[in-house]
Amino acid sequence: MNQPVTVVQYGMGPIGCLVARLVAVRPDMRLVGAVDADPHKVGRDVGDVASLGRPLGVDVRPDAGPLLASLRPTLVFHSTGSFLDDVGPQIEAVCRAGANVVSSCEELSYPWVRNRGWAERIDAAARQGGVTVLGTGINPGFAMDLMLITVTGMCRDVRGVSARRVVNASKRRHALQRKIGAGLTVERFQQMVQAGKVRHVGLPESVDMVAAALGWRLTRVDDEIAPVVAQQPVETEHLRVEAGQVAGVRQTAVGWEGELKRLSLELEMYVGAPEPGDYLSVDGDPPVSVSIDGIHGDVSTAAIMVNAASFVAAAPPGLTTMTQLPTVCWRAPFA
Amino acid sequence: MNQPVTVVQYGMGPIGCLVARLVAVRPDMRLVGAVDADPHKVGRDVGDVASLGRPLGVDVRPDAGPLLASLRPTLVFHSTGSFLDDVGPQIEAVCRAGANVVSSCEELSYPWVRNRGWAERIDAAARQGGVTVLGTGINPGFAMDLMLITVTGMCRDVRGVSARRVVNASKRRHALQRKIGAGLTVERFQQMVQAGKVRHVGLPESVDMVAAALGWRLTRVDDEIAPVVAQQPVETEHLRVEAGQVAGVRQTAVGWEGELKRLSLELEMYVGAPEPGDYLSVDGDPPVSVSIDGIHGDVSTAAIMVNAASFVAAAPPGLTTMTQLPTVCWRAPFA
Repeated sequence: MNQPVTVVQYGMGPIGCLVARLVAVRPDMRLVGAVDADPHKVGRDVGDVASLGRPLGVDVRPDAGPLLASLRPTLVFHSTGSFLDDVGPQIEAVCRAGANVVSSCEELSYPWVRNRGWAERIDAAARQGGVTVLGTGINPGFAMDLMLITVTGMCRDVRGVSARRVVNASKRRHALQRKIGAGLTVERFQQMVQAGKVRHVGLPESVDMVAAALGWRLTRVDDEIAPVVAQQPVETEHLRVEAGQVAGVRQTAVGWEGELKRLSLELEMYVGAPEPGDYLSVDGDPPVSVSIDGIHGDVSTAAIMVNAASFVAAAPPGLTTMTQLPTVCWRAPFA
Repeated sequence: MNQPVTVVQYGMGPIGCLVARLVAVRPDMRLVGAVDADPHKVGRDVGDVASLGRPLGVDVRPDAGPLLASLRPTLVFHSTGSFLDDVGPQIEAVCRAGANVVSSCEELSYPWVRNRGWAERIDAAARQGGVTVLGTGINPGFAMDLMLITVTGMCRDVRGVSARRVVNASKRRHALQRKIGAGLTVERFQQMVQAGKVRHVGLPESVDMVAAALGWRLTRVDDEIAPVVAQQPVETEHLRVEAGQVAGVRQTAVGWEGELKRLSLELEMYVGAPEPGDYLSVDGDPPVSVSIDGIHGDVSTAAIMVNAASFVAAAPPGLTTMTQLPTVCWRAPFA
């Protein structure tokens, strides 16, 4: 067996904790450090913060710089935020420290259109550090982009593609239920949309990734957010939604090439969603439709990050994307 | 726009004709030559042989050697047979002529286990010629291996995977209907199985590809062929199957790791199949199931071959596989 890969977990929020728990049980990886700015987590053992049920002998530290310089890990799992303006400098610093990066930052999944400056800066930092950087997760990174792109491989012509993801938020984290507006009045929901507080980050990045892969030069992307209003009361572990209140959010992103509607992504996240699942369709020759049952947002995001690690570590230096890598898959840890 | 890629079609059977028709309408590819040993095809225009409805100004030639030496195409689409003992020397010769290869040879899709000698010879020839070789198609190459492997990317643990592909052969070629035994008695079908004439080639290669990707070291692969017997009469354009006669074939390949059943692939091809489709399932955490509607064997095999061309031409030299390449997808020809 090869030496286990040394990793640092950067960000001990919900995703970071899931990643740390996965790493802890994989013999091919060794968690050597963890970073989080939250004073309630600093100094505690990762096994405690991540509810692993046993200590890992690794404490959460507040600053990445000294930790990375002394530990020199092969790879950093990064999950501190969704926006490159916030987390871009962190990723650059990891590159400079010579570690590969797998990040759940949504804007990093395909930053070449909307955050081109950051894409170029991070790509340059990665090349200079001789490391590879990937932004991934279930969405963006898998369900509504990579899978859709993969499915077109069997088509001799494609006029348009669409993906619809329906998430039942009933069993998700309280923070997520609040984030999608569950329990708000429609008016309050609209105020939150105005304030930019309901948006799922990353849908436009999925649009960009699909369009780039399929060679469509989009002239316009429409991004819309609307409430899903409860028809009947819904009760979750964390809150109660009355009929007429907001159960969650329906966000759509539509990409146009001139007058041609090339792609349409629709994400519905609400409590009480009756038929959760992922539905992909290709308007092509042949036409193809795919339904996927069983994707779990947080769990699968952590899984993809961990599964991608060996592919990222083996890839040529630079900022990469899920479509540029070989097929990222689960792999038996002892192999 | 870039210069179109020059291609030669090697093998003008059903798949080769579909590929030639696709290439003929793509502005990013230019068909410069075609090869087939069949005296009924030699000397005829490719547009005629492939029923394109117009001549392409390219004649079918009987020998690849002189043609490749004079034309020096960037890539050869190869579809002359299923077995490496037959077609391996052809592929080696194309490599020596300095052309990349995308082949529908089923045994080439993942030859490292069952045809390791050929895998090494072709890999060496490709590296020496500075070209890349890929074996692909809908199956093996996509539906029962690549898609299954891709889906595991979202799982944090995988205990086993399975794929079931049900093909309604009613509208397929006469040769295919005969090949799957449609219209035979069960006794005659068993004789054909004994003679090795009913087998779909490539299912064990799909098993090998999945096991290699997921890191399972299989200790045994069971390969079984059984008739699907018609419950009621079925009539196709080409033949009639009475109740009690064979409607087609059910082939299964099961891969074991010790006592653990790691993967199970089941391919049913028969006339009158009521629910054609592809059904993938991952026994994992989370468990995932996928259903795909719309894959057409021949059309999608030709599509994948053409879609893979630009990825193969850009890959490092050697024998590659679908999982090693970036995500092969359809791409707008003008891009």
